Amino acid sequence: MSVYRPAAVGMFLSEVDTPSLILDLDAFERNLDRMDASLAGKPIAIRPHAKSHKCPEIAKRQLARGAVGVCCQKVSEAAAMVDGGVTDVLIANEVVGAPKLGLLTALAKRARVAVCADDAGNVADLDRAAAAAGVRLDVLVEVNVGANRCGVEPGEPAFALAQAIARSKHLRFAGLQAYQGGAQHLRKVEERRAAIEAACGKVKQTTALLASAGIACERVTGAGTGTYLFEAASGVYHELQAGSYIFMDVDYAKNEWTESGIPRFEHSLFVWATVMSCPVPDRAVVDAGLKASSMDSGMPRVAGVAGAEYVKASDEHGVLALNGGARLAVGDKLKLIPGHCDPTVNLYDHYVCVRGEKVEAIWPITARGAVW
Amino acid sequence: MSVYRPAAVGMFLSEVDTPSLILDLDAFERNLDRMDASLAGKPIAIRPHAKSHKCPEIAKRQLARGAVGVCCQKVSEAAAMVDGGVTDVLIANEVVGAPKLGLLTALAKRARVAVCADDAGNVADLDRAAAAAGVRLDVLVEVNVGANRCGVEPGEPAFALAQAIARSKHLRFAGLQAYQGGAQHLRKVEERRAAIEAACGKVKQTTALLASAGIACERVTGAGTGTYLFEAASGVYHELQAGSYIFMDVDYAKNEWTESGIPRFEHSLFVWATVMSCPVPDRAVVDAGLKASSMDSGMPRVAGVAGAEYVKASDEHGVLALNGGARLAVGDKLKLIPGHCDPTVNLYDHYVCVRGEKVEAIWPITARGAVW
Repeated sequence: MSVYRPAAVGMFLSEVDTPSLILDLDAFERNLDRMDASLAGKPIAIRPHAKSHKCPEIAKRQLARGAVGVCCQKVSEAAAMVDGGVTDVLIANEVVGAPKLGLLTALAKRARVAVCADDAGNVADLDRAAAAAGVRLDVLVEVNVGANRCGVEPGEPAFALAQAIARSKHLRFAGLQAYQGGAQHLRKVEERRAAIEAACGKVKQTTALLASAGIACERVTGAGTGTYLFEAASGVYHELQAGSYIFMDVDYAKNEWTESGIPRFEHSLFVWATVMSCPVPDRAVVDAGLKASSMDSGMPRVAGVAGAEYVKASDEHGVLALNGGARLAVGDKLKLIPGHCDPTVNLYDHYVCVRGEKVEAIWPITARGAVW
Repeated sequence: MSVYRPAAVGMFLSEVDTPSLILDLDAFERNLDRMDASLAGKPIAIRPHAKSHKCPEIAKRQLARGAVGVCCQKVSEAAAMVDGGVTDVLIANEVVGAPKLGLLTALAKRARVAVCADDAGNVADLDRAAAAAGVRLDVLVEVNVGANRCGVEPGEPAFALAQAIARSKHLRFAGLQAYQGGAQHLRKVEERRAAIEAACGKVKQTTALLASAGIACERVTGAGTGTYLFEAASGVYHELQAGSYIFMDVDYAKNEWTESGIPRFEHSLFVWATVMSCPVPDRAVVDAGLKASSMDSGMPRVAGVAGAEYVKASDEHGVLALNGGARLAVGDKLKLIPGHCDPTVNLYDHYVCVRGEKVEAIWPITARGAVW
């Protein structure tokens, strides 16, 4: 981690060095407001996913507005959240291997911690680790509701695993993890709605079996920014895991939103970049390449410069095509909207938080690189 | 940066937690040997690119074998190298903006530092910054030799910029930066050879003008792992900037190498991953997704497990298709070969250096995130 800092509180944005990760606080807070308004009066909790921001400062602002806790994907990410003062974390993912189980059970002594499982052997390992640490661990069954990634199949396989957890002396069956990740970026509203309807059917198939065996399912948790109002209206889900709504990236913005009811969240996260070369009139090169903005879901978009298009990334360079008379000069600074916010955040050690044109705060991204 | 460490010296590889970045020291050293052997007796220097490894420990091993210095892409990366004991750094890139120029001239007091320029205004800024710091700065003209990224056009424009540098009181014209980045991943040997021949023509066009004006061009520097023997044989280049040869990634391995004369470097860099879910027999999910291995140049390849193919990445998951009877179980660990080594290294804080099955060292990646 470099000791060099691109910004200091009180600076003008124009003085902030590049590339750096800029959070527009007004836009960020409007996104928090939009989420609150869209859920007002609905009998559903929100547990935002901290994998998007990796920052306890942001988690604490979500919790202050009534979020019941946060989700994490990794036990090291959860540790960063608990270290930062978060007291309720769901690891919405499987945790495998003795070192990680040791960290998990240690965390469970310091905070309310739950974890997912999709394998009977892993359930046995969780039970042994909980016994060794002297804790009782909340475990949810991850159900494959259509994403075909992790998760046991709904119905009998999920039911059998829930029974195994309920029988484990040091575990408590705490519900179903039912995230339909494959639905979030389906572009058409009706495709997303149909995917969540199908997911709800798979959940109900499982909860019916649990109910028939007298096993209470206190929590069904899932959903993302692309679909969360469908889960909220389903009568099936208790908790929403949306994360990206706070930032909004280019990839999510390509979804159709009209008729979904989901508010149009605005871009609040930017990579601040400098034009470092203008060798010919129709080309500018910025100092932010694929080590400054993740390209996995496509190129970043140039904000506020009509005709400038980010067309090619190499490690440390971004080539902008200048169309329709757009002109840029060496030393100009501009904002890029990341193609995908989560892995872009994971490249930086700090958010440079600006309000208007002034740096108001610098928030450390304490879970950056916390991939364990 | 997480305080949790995945490994300790003396551990067996099998005990190292995941995801972590593994450097196979034997393979790494064989790659160093191959590079040395391929250049033996040739009148050319090597200045390996540190953007690939971002680690002074690796730089020092390259220098100990006769490298004349290292290249960096960013002034903050150069600072990490100088802080780590490297005494000769070429920033093979433009440096723009007052804070960076301040850092650059401060570095020039501590080490032999050179920088590139492709703009007359930037040359004036460099001269002012050097004057303010009381240093004389070596500046190379970056020439566009075919990559169409940064760099002035060869011939008159490059000549004019060299004259501007030579006239600047606090700068010294130190040669030409002539890297043909667009050639490195052309798959066919003949395409790469032709691209470097064309680049050499552009350099000669420029050096002829310089010679006619009595301006000495002491150094032409460039080349990458895909082409470096062509530059070495050209009679035009003095210095080679190859970087990826030490690691070798999936993307570079797709090049044709036979008939190039360039040795077939071997994979020495791996992402160590754990199977965290095996929900159905033909699918395994590993805990290394696109925050653990950069996907910009394609998926990682699974090493040593016949029939296992990494087919889909999400933030923290990698989905493996298991073909031809391949079987994996929850808890199995395996090596992934990164699609692209440079941005993958930039995700990690440490190399876990293994020799055979034992962890021999842990090397900090001190320039991780040094994107300024």
